[in-house]
Amino acid sequence: MTSMAELAPEHFIWEMRGTVAVIRLNRPERKNPLTFESYAELRNTFRDLVYATDVSAVVFTSNGENFCSGGDVHEIIGPLVGRDMKGLLEFTRMTGDLVKAMLNCGKPIITAIDGICVGAGAIIAMSSDIRFATPRTSTAFLFTRVGLAGCDMGACAMLPRIIGQGRAADLLYSGRSMSAEEGLQWGFYNRVVEPESLEEDAIAYATRLAQGPTFAHSITKTQLNQEWSMSLEQAIESEAQAQAICMQTNDFARAYHAFVAKQKPEFKGD
Amino acid sequence: MTSMAELAPEHFIWEMRGTVAVIRLNRPERKNPLTFESYAELRNTFRDLVYATDVSAVVFTSNGENFCSGGDVHEIIGPLVGRDMKGLLEFTRMTGDLVKAMLNCGKPIITAIDGICVGAGAIIAMSSDIRFATPRTSTAFLFTRVGLAGCDMGACAMLPRIIGQGRAADLLYSGRSMSAEEGLQWGFYNRVVEPESLEEDAIAYATRLAQGPTFAHSITKTQLNQEWSMSLEQAIESEAQAQAICMQTNDFARAYHAFVAKQKPEFKGD
Amino acid sequence: MTSMAELAPEHFIWEMRGTVAVIRLNRPERKNPLTFESYAELRNTFRDLVYATDVSAVVFTSNGENFCSGGDVHEIIGPLVGRDMKGLLEFTRMTGDLVKAMLNCGKPIITAIDGICVGAGAIIAMSSDIRFATPRTSTAFLFTRVGLAGCDMGACAMLPRIIGQGRAADLLYSGRSMSAEEGLQWGFYNRVVEPESLEEDAIAYATRLAQGPTFAHSITKTQLNQEWSMSLEQAIESEAQAQAICMQTNDFARAYHAFVAKQKPEFKGD
Repeated sequence: MTSMAELAPEHFIWEMRGTVAVIRLNRPERKNPLTFESYAELRNTFRDLVYATDVSAVVFTSNGENFCSGGDVHEIIGPLVGRDMKGLLEFTRMTGDLVKAMLNCGKPIITAIDGICVGAGAIIAMSSDIRFATPRTSTAFLFTRVGLAGCDMGACAMLPRIIGQGRAADLLYSGRSMSAEEGLQWGFYNRVVEPESLEEDAIAYATRLAQGPTFAHSITKTQLNQEWSMSLEQAIESEAQAQAICMQTNDFARAYHAFVAKQKPEFKGD
Repeated sequence: MTSMAELAPEHFIWEMRGTVAVIRLNRPERKNPLTFESYAELRNTFRDLVYATDVSAVVFTSNGENFCSGGDVHEIIGPLVGRDMKGLLEFTRMTGDLVKAMLNCGKPIITAIDGICVGAGAIIAMSSDIRFATPRTSTAFLFTRVGLAGCDMGACAMLPRIIGQGRAADLLYSGRSMSAEEGLQWGFYNRVVEPESLEEDAIAYATRLAQGPTFAHSITKTQLNQEWSMSLEQAIESEAQAQAICMQTNDFARAYHAFVAKQKPEFKGD
Repeated sequence: MTSMAELAPEHFIWEMRGTVAVIRLNRPERKNPLTFESYAELRNTFRDLVYATDVSAVVFTSNGENFCSGGDVHEIIGPLVGRDMKGLLEFTRMTGDLVKAMLNCGKPIITAIDGICVGAGAIIAMSSDIRFATPRTSTAFLFTRVGLAGCDMGACAMLPRIIGQGRAADLLYSGRSMSAEEGLQWGFYNRVVEPESLEEDAIAYATRLAQGPTFAHSITKTQLNQEWSMSLEQAIESEAQAQAICMQTNDFARAYHAFVAKQKPEFKGD
């Protein structure tokens, strides 16, 4: 039993809504940039989430009408200029570790993306499971604009799997903004809603998952993330094993008995 | 020479239309659920299809305005509850073997999906090559609703490759229905047609393929299914070999000579 | 320093627009078919482009209102009929080598596709990074119509990654034409523009990339093409290394200093 409900992070805001953890960055006056410290604390938090027994899903939401403006120019890009390779790799591996921690945290992550969502912010959105946006959401993988490549924190691997190789190439080479309409039509966003209801809609979605078979959800997440590099034959065998594991959960039995009794099942995640 | 035209299966309906085999489940009064027996017989049939010389394409169609309601709650889910791991894996591997058999059967499979298409029914649709639907088709990967994970029979591998990772995550975590309109826009369905013409349209598509270079089609199917886990360099070399094989077929020569003679080629699949 | 600006190819047209190389096939009266010679010369040219210091991006454009009619029936298909396996593999490997050379040339390739774009022409479009079309563009992977499989020059690997597995299967099995509207909606085309502005729009896009951080672009291209066959964990580590390399470029420092000085950065590709 590891509890995370009382977490009090320094560099972002953490709030519980039932068993849904709601995360938001805490510098809305600057559109929520990331710093070395917030990167590291987010990475550590997602790593710890694997063991949390009182968190069933995560909503990563916006603050002050914006999601995230990416790595801060003064606090991150400046110090990186002139670093030696060891120091640079330390940084790029830390940012990659945040994505790995999100992929491996065992809980579905829903992002609620209002306004600006660029650079590392776009990566956080990309690395979550479900994405909600608003008509004014503007997402850009703008690494090229600071002289870098589009391959940041897994973007060249993950973005094509979400929106296709051609559209990903356009966004990553040009660094241009993707509009909410494009993002919805291309499958980057699962839903575009009004700003007023964005956060509650995302929390409602997360709550439905949190009330579902959460152990099974964690297996869904694992398989969604690791089957891309399997052959179809390997993936089918891997799913045969993974689903057999889920068939031994109490939630599977609960669903069956509820169905027979013509009731709604109450899942408990075991 | 292995003939399958006269097949008389016990647990589904088999009918020949020229060299197109038309399969439909046979319990329309219950929206065509699958049972242990129909799973196994379908798997065996698709395995045998590799060797069938009188079947060139397959249409898996609906019956009584529905495609398939998935694994039967009483006949499948009930007996699985409480099985030991060996017994569970026996079941999940059998269902995975149906998908593998469909992928490896050597003939293009066109599904004609009317009405309800859920659970294992959705998997059969997903595992086919071409999908036709009607405006009332409702497809759901609803494993989560019975307490299970979305990773059933290859879904976490195959569904993202068809509709993208973000949309697949939504369907697999929520278990919600995908409408016909969504399915068309997302590339799950190749065509949405009226219920009255669904089956004939699918058979017409299959017949065109059956009258084409069927040996080459079988190579197309093989390559489409196994190149995902290759590097692009490996895939290009693999296609150089596969296409060189096709260039030694008589169908290739037939096409050339017909073109020179300004005639339509008659392909024979050799 | 390897210069390619003065290249004078025999079998296609080469023109420089700033540091953007513009390629077009040179037989517009026959809709620009490919021959053994033009295949080989294109392959060699894209191989040399890796080392070219005065070419930063490539536009492969149309000629006489058509892009490319594919391998010439008389000059390619005829001679292939009856070749032995060694001779066939020599051909299919040469065509695959053109695609590999395009993938590995280190410069972004933008195709400007007007009118007919079929067979190997469709493959050239598919193998480029960004695709512009016009309302009258008609693209077909029509290998099946000459008795061959859809697996030509990487099509079964690359096309599904661009438009999804279901739509790719339809195009490759049927050989049918994809309309401009379909291509745009499916993510095959990045943009559909009027024929009059097609070439200039593509050159403008290429010029913007050519004026950007071209070393970083070459890394983007490398990663976009090789991460499909990595696991997500491997891809994230690979990007940590690749981006750290880019953080040691002068372009990264230039972007930072320009930002601090509230100026537009001038990238030089080093």
